[in-house]
Amino acid sequence: MDMTEQIIQLALFEDSGLGDITTESILPSPRNGKGVIIAKEPLILAGIEVAVKVFALLNPSVVCTSSFKDGEVVQKGDIIFEAQGDLLCLLKGERVALNFLQRLSGIATLTRTFVEALDNPKVRLTDTRKTTPGFRILEKDAVRAGGGYNHRYSLYDGILIKDNHIAVAGGIEQAVRAVRARTSHLMKIEVEVSNMEEVKQALAANAEVIMLDNMDTESMAAAVSYIGGRAIVEASGNVSLSTLNAIAATGVDVISCGALTHQARSVDLSMRINSE
Amino acid sequence: MDMTEQIIQLALFEDSGLGDITTESILPSPRNGKGVIIAKEPLILAGIEVAVKVFALLNPSVVCTSSFKDGEVVQKGDIIFEAQGDLLCLLKGERVALNFLQRLSGIATLTRTFVEALDNPKVRLTDTRKTTPGFRILEKDAVRAGGGYNHRYSLYDGILIKDNHIAVAGGIEQAVRAVRARTSHLMKIEVEVSNMEEVKQALAANAEVIMLDNMDTESMAAAVSYIGGRAIVEASGNVSLSTLNAIAATGVDVISCGALTHQARSVDLSMRINSE
Amino acid sequence: MDMTEQIIQLALFEDSGLGDITTESILPSPRNGKGVIIAKEPLILAGIEVAVKVFALLNPSVVCTSSFKDGEVVQKGDIIFEAQGDLLCLLKGERVALNFLQRLSGIATLTRTFVEALDNPKVRLTDTRKTTPGFRILEKDAVRAGGGYNHRYSLYDGILIKDNHIAVAGGIEQAVRAVRARTSHLMKIEVEVSNMEEVKQALAANAEVIMLDNMDTESMAAAVSYIGGRAIVEASGNVSLSTLNAIAATGVDVISCGALTHQARSVDLSMRINSE
Amino acid sequence: MDMTEQIIQLALFEDSGLGDITTESILPSPRNGKGVIIAKEPLILAGIEVAVKVFALLNPSVVCTSSFKDGEVVQKGDIIFEAQGDLLCLLKGERVALNFLQRLSGIATLTRTFVEALDNPKVRLTDTRKTTPGFRILEKDAVRAGGGYNHRYSLYDGILIKDNHIAVAGGIEQAVRAVRARTSHLMKIEVEVSNMEEVKQALAANAEVIMLDNMDTESMAAAVSYIGGRAIVEASGNVSLSTLNAIAATGVDVISCGALTHQARSVDLSMRINSE
Amino acid sequence: MDMTEQIIQLALFEDSGLGDITTESILPSPRNGKGVIIAKEPLILAGIEVAVKVFALLNPSVVCTSSFKDGEVVQKGDIIFEAQGDLLCLLKGERVALNFLQRLSGIATLTRTFVEALDNPKVRLTDTRKTTPGFRILEKDAVRAGGGYNHRYSLYDGILIKDNHIAVAGGIEQAVRAVRARTSHLMKIEVEVSNMEEVKQALAANAEVIMLDNMDTESMAAAVSYIGGRAIVEASGNVSLSTLNAIAATGVDVISCGALTHQARSVDLSMRINSE
Amino acid sequence: MDMTEQIIQLALFEDSGLGDITTESILPSPRNGKGVIIAKEPLILAGIEVAVKVFALLNPSVVCTSSFKDGEVVQKGDIIFEAQGDLLCLLKGERVALNFLQRLSGIATLTRTFVEALDNPKVRLTDTRKTTPGFRILEKDAVRAGGGYNHRYSLYDGILIKDNHIAVAGGIEQAVRAVRARTSHLMKIEVEVSNMEEVKQALAANAEVIMLDNMDTESMAAAVSYIGGRAIVEASGNVSLSTLNAIAATGVDVISCGALTHQARSVDLSMRINSE
Repeated sequence: MDMTEQIIQLALFEDSGLGDITTESILPSPRNGKGVIIAKEPLILAGIEVAVKVFALLNPSVVCTSSFKDGEVVQKGDIIFEAQGDLLCLLKGERVALNFLQRLSGIATLTRTFVEALDNPKVRLTDTRKTTPGFRILEKDAVRAGGGYNHRYSLYDGILIKDNHIAVAGGIEQAVRAVRARTSHLMKIEVEVSNMEEVKQALAANAEVIMLDNMDTESMAAAVSYIGGRAIVEASGNVSLSTLNAIAATGVDVISCGALTHQARSVDLSMRINSE
Repeated sequence: MDMTEQIIQLALFEDSGLGDITTESILPSPRNGKGVIIAKEPLILAGIEVAVKVFALLNPSVVCTSSFKDGEVVQKGDIIFEAQGDLLCLLKGERVALNFLQRLSGIATLTRTFVEALDNPKVRLTDTRKTTPGFRILEKDAVRAGGGYNHRYSLYDGILIKDNHIAVAGGIEQAVRAVRARTSHLMKIEVEVSNMEEVKQALAANAEVIMLDNMDTESMAAAVSYIGGRAIVEASGNVSLSTLNAIAATGVDVISCGALTHQARSVDLSMRINSE
Repeated sequence: MDMTEQIIQLALFEDSGLGDITTESILPSPRNGKGVIIAKEPLILAGIEVAVKVFALLNPSVVCTSSFKDGEVVQKGDIIFEAQGDLLCLLKGERVALNFLQRLSGIATLTRTFVEALDNPKVRLTDTRKTTPGFRILEKDAVRAGGGYNHRYSLYDGILIKDNHIAVAGGIEQAVRAVRARTSHLMKIEVEVSNMEEVKQALAANAEVIMLDNMDTESMAAAVSYIGGRAIVEASGNVSLSTLNAIAATGVDVISCGALTHQARSVDLSMRINSE
Repeated sequence: MDMTEQIIQLALFEDSGLGDITTESILPSPRNGKGVIIAKEPLILAGIEVAVKVFALLNPSVVCTSSFKDGEVVQKGDIIFEAQGDLLCLLKGERVALNFLQRLSGIATLTRTFVEALDNPKVRLTDTRKTTPGFRILEKDAVRAGGGYNHRYSLYDGILIKDNHIAVAGGIEQAVRAVRARTSHLMKIEVEVSNMEEVKQALAANAEVIMLDNMDTESMAAAVSYIGGRAIVEASGNVSLSTLNAIAATGVDVISCGALTHQARSVDLSMRINSE
Repeated sequence: MDMTEQIIQLALFEDSGLGDITTESILPSPRNGKGVIIAKEPLILAGIEVAVKVFALLNPSVVCTSSFKDGEVVQKGDIIFEAQGDLLCLLKGERVALNFLQRLSGIATLTRTFVEALDNPKVRLTDTRKTTPGFRILEKDAVRAGGGYNHRYSLYDGILIKDNHIAVAGGIEQAVRAVRARTSHLMKIEVEVSNMEEVKQALAANAEVIMLDNMDTESMAAAVSYIGGRAIVEASGNVSLSTLNAIAATGVDVISCGALTHQARSVDLSMRINSE
Repeated sequence: MDMTEQIIQLALFEDSGLGDITTESILPSPRNGKGVIIAKEPLILAGIEVAVKVFALLNPSVVCTSSFKDGEVVQKGDIIFEAQGDLLCLLKGERVALNFLQRLSGIATLTRTFVEALDNPKVRLTDTRKTTPGFRILEKDAVRAGGGYNHRYSLYDGILIKDNHIAVAGGIEQAVRAVRARTSHLMKIEVEVSNMEEVKQALAANAEVIMLDNMDTESMAAAVSYIGGRAIVEASGNVSLSTLNAIAATGVDVISCGALTHQARSVDLSMRINSE
């Protein structure tokens, strides 16, 4: 059971694992129905396959179709999704499917706002690990649906040497050496720095990515200039719609932005269900 | 394993289930450390026991202490939480604990804003089932920490007869009768209505709670007056800080508000970790 | 995976999770067969969908049909159920399906005996939480199949304030207040009492259901009279076929009876399997 | 997680996996208490370690002591078990621990009745696979606590060739040969027979155990005499307190009896809990 | 979920539970393909149903066919297996299916070498519990595919009294008696001995199987002669291709050999996948 | 539960999840004991923390100590590990702990042989994904204990564009572009090539790692020379002790070798257990 299925199963169990006492009372024998999910505001869609899986896990014979794919623009009033089949399952899956779609499309929509605000095609806007616990794989998909890029998924598929690590290792050079000796040759080593002195040390240690953490734009520009293409440069901290382009103008390659996930709000969707 | 532990385990697995390649490279043998979580903005705390559990599940010997309890006001700069013990576990647990605390305190803080805006102690403000999938038990705790009340947890611990159910059953009266015959005498039956005609039918069917769904305040006031204390009256739909008190003024007993959970944003916290 | 599926999976694993060494020796290549489950005594059927699920989980292509539904009367010799398909799965599922059906039909049959003995349609006969651990959802379905009603399912979907709670809270009034402040407006509050003084306190505290625990019928009648319809009255303790009608005659609304589940015995069924 | 822990975890989740809303309302901060389990009728104890595990899984710091061990005689009024510690856990574990102990002691008590009725020390009285699904390991322990013996646990730890197998294999001799070629030399092969002709075939095929299924006592005696110690002889079918000694008198070595588990009723126990 | 499915699910999760970032990048929308597994050396096949299950668990609509069954001889260049369907699943399942087939066929191939070297049809060559943790059910199937026999699967489906047990019990006689009193009449009792004195004690205690552990062939022959058919005799320890026939010549009934599983090496297979 | 704990739990369940019928018969009440694991041949140790965890999961109060760490040289007769505590747990954990240690130390020992044979410190010898399903995290740790390096862990933490991917994408350039657009800036892109033409294309597409697959040493040397440090060069295919140094002499940076895991054999260890 992959990570996506695990969180969907947990969500279904949470909502109806012990039954749906209202619906079961009214539907003593099976009946078919049809449900449609409708956008109540404009949005960028994300999570459509999650919605399909919600109904498939409840009952594999429910037929789902959607006229939109993740990443597409949906207008107010558009029908995003149709599910046809066992009415009890439609009613059980309704809230769970909506909760997923609303949150994930919220992230995609916010990301798209950032991406469109950033008028610099050379700069990659990425998410962070500041995601809803258990949802990371879905939220990172939603960021890509919105036009953003993904940073590492977790602590095991990317290397980021932070201040804590440097302190423990006794210096940037020692930290990079220890990490290089232990990790795969397919991974780049990123080092977090907060001033020019550390930039120099990271570069001297052959860091392949340098994260400028919470530096002002002037210092960032200086760092970019010093690095001169010898490492990928990532800016992090205080990234918002109002600071985005100033940061991009410093010449960094990547801007990572926790707000894409932790400041997103659910979009407004509703589901209409009729028996047949 | 209760629901809380299931979502925490999923979150820990997601972030470091295959290891933390950076930290493990730098920490070849165990070492102790100390971490503190600090508020970077004022907030209402929620999730403190979740944070404790995050570290306890990684390593039962980590010692956690906190000077605040859920529901308390925290000021910018306050230290919320301290964890002392195995440094590798502190670094593995950091992001997961923060992600939980930031989201849950975000909900408590938003709820408190609503509760304080509502200047009517007779009206109960509740959440809905519009929660992050898999997180419901935590988010409902956070709503209470913020001073709100909980609506039903799921489809099996509360009865709500909606328009879909009424259509399937053939009418309000039939729906209520079917539900009463099947469910426990400890549960009240709630019926969703959208106009005065349905209010009358619900009352005639002895509904114990009547939800006025998306009705204007004038109609709500008329419904409250008609019901005259014979059922608990709940308002639902279009609840925001600007409509809250007008809705309360109609005389309803309960206002349910999805925004408490699905429009909340994470608050800003950070963790500082030092080796000893 | 809902609760029903969890207990079925556990049961299947228990019986054949590491194989069926006898059958696998004799059936080196797949073969089809047909099995029928036959009643060896008259009974009220319960668990038929569990039996279907047992075979479906072993092999989705096994075809199950049944001529009876839960709650129906089955006579000695009646064929309850047929399964057709992979012979190995029929042989693996046989004992598990029978064990479920025998126990659940035993509960339905005993419940029907109680229900028929109770010659008072105004009184609701319910089960309790005295069920086989892990089986509660199935056993509560079986009670309904027998014509009984369900009390709360668990500690989270119904409120029952017992003597222990009252002692901890410092009195009935304090206990009810604490519970009302914390729980949903969709739940009624039940208080367990054992004498008239407590009945008065519970009523004064606005308890919505009052459980008369182990009181003699005279005291129960007095309590019912005192309460006078201001709360639902439930009788509990010493409920048996011989005391049932005397208790009902006191005027209580509900009689809860642990014996429905914990004194039930398995009914006698057998399965005949032939290869095709 | 072994089988015992799996069923206990399922039972705990079922009863309080989403909390105990009554107790949590009344106990906002932790408090210690003490609970004792008392016998309300004479019984043979079984399941005492299960009860210990119930509380240990809820909270490892709860201290459990018991003055009786499985298999011992308990009199009405005896205190079987004490648990001291976190009051919330005592209240959460109460019903689950009782439900296990009541059912398992019910089996031990019924088994002891059969064992004492059987006045023939040479005959081994065993259980069958007719156990509560998911509970088999516990119920088989309870049978031994009552003085009985265990038959095979499942389809993978013992060989029993039944009529269905014989039909599929084309005869007893073929079935035994196929099974012997596939299974371990540590397992005896048992064949189910229903008349003397089959007894002869089973013996000719070198069956090591022969089960006389639903044969009358006269035929059983003839079979025992024919077998003459060349195989272990097991009687099965229609075993009750009234037929037990007549069956034993036929000279069989083993009597297997489903009633030990599927006709047992829960014994009466109660738990008293006080806060400290 | 049976044991086989558990290990396959773990293996699939391990390899692609968080996705296949290379393939998903290149295959944004679904496409069909076909893959074939080819032998790159001669081998005895084992695990073909595991390979089928790997693809079925990834996507039930993938169609698998194989021209060989477990236990058959495969020549270099033979196509063992074909899978047709969703290309992403073929690429995700490739390595997992190969890793299973390579290891299991390695065991079958090594076992066949031993079986062919043993020129004595009366002696049964068995495996041991020295298997890869979590893989035992698959590796024991592979041993049978190679022509070997299985010893007990685990500590619960066979009895083997070793020196540690004898020391704890206070002697062979006491150990056998304790075990017989506790275990099913369907199980033979095996005792491990290392000299003639212990052989005599084991036989006196009515052990049904006697394991001669690490004895020289002369002593084994003497033991076999002394036992004289009164128990099954098993030889264990120092079993290799060069000692096999000398051990068999002592007259033992069974030779158990850990090397069949723990000294096996993976055979060489490859999978070719094309899009359609 | 991290991946390591999952495979250990599966292994423990497999061996004694339903009990240890021999030991439980002989040890009716708890007793303490001590066990030591002894090397019966020289070896490089790996898996010592797995062995500790095996006993800890059975019973947290068992005390384990070891005089060696992973990666250290152990001589024949050395005591590697001691466990003291509940005798039943020592006997239950024995075979599982040994099976892990024997296999993992077998891999470390074989890896050390390769590492010592490779007389070129500039070349990194790595494992592959040809590992035992479910064991990968443990086997990769064992390779590092032996002095080798790890390649990617799975399909989600490293990028390797193979011939299949190139065919689907329509060329090396298209494949690299698609992957770069979808994956994190912390990952290097590796492309598998089999001739000089493909080397040129991979380099032109800015592949950061180029895998020379099954090329002869002459071609490899030419490729290394052409690449001239513009990408990391990895050799793969036909890597054995006899070809190792010739491949290294071509100037490649990395040699990946499946034999480290799939051709390793278990080393010989035994455990002695005494009661106290």
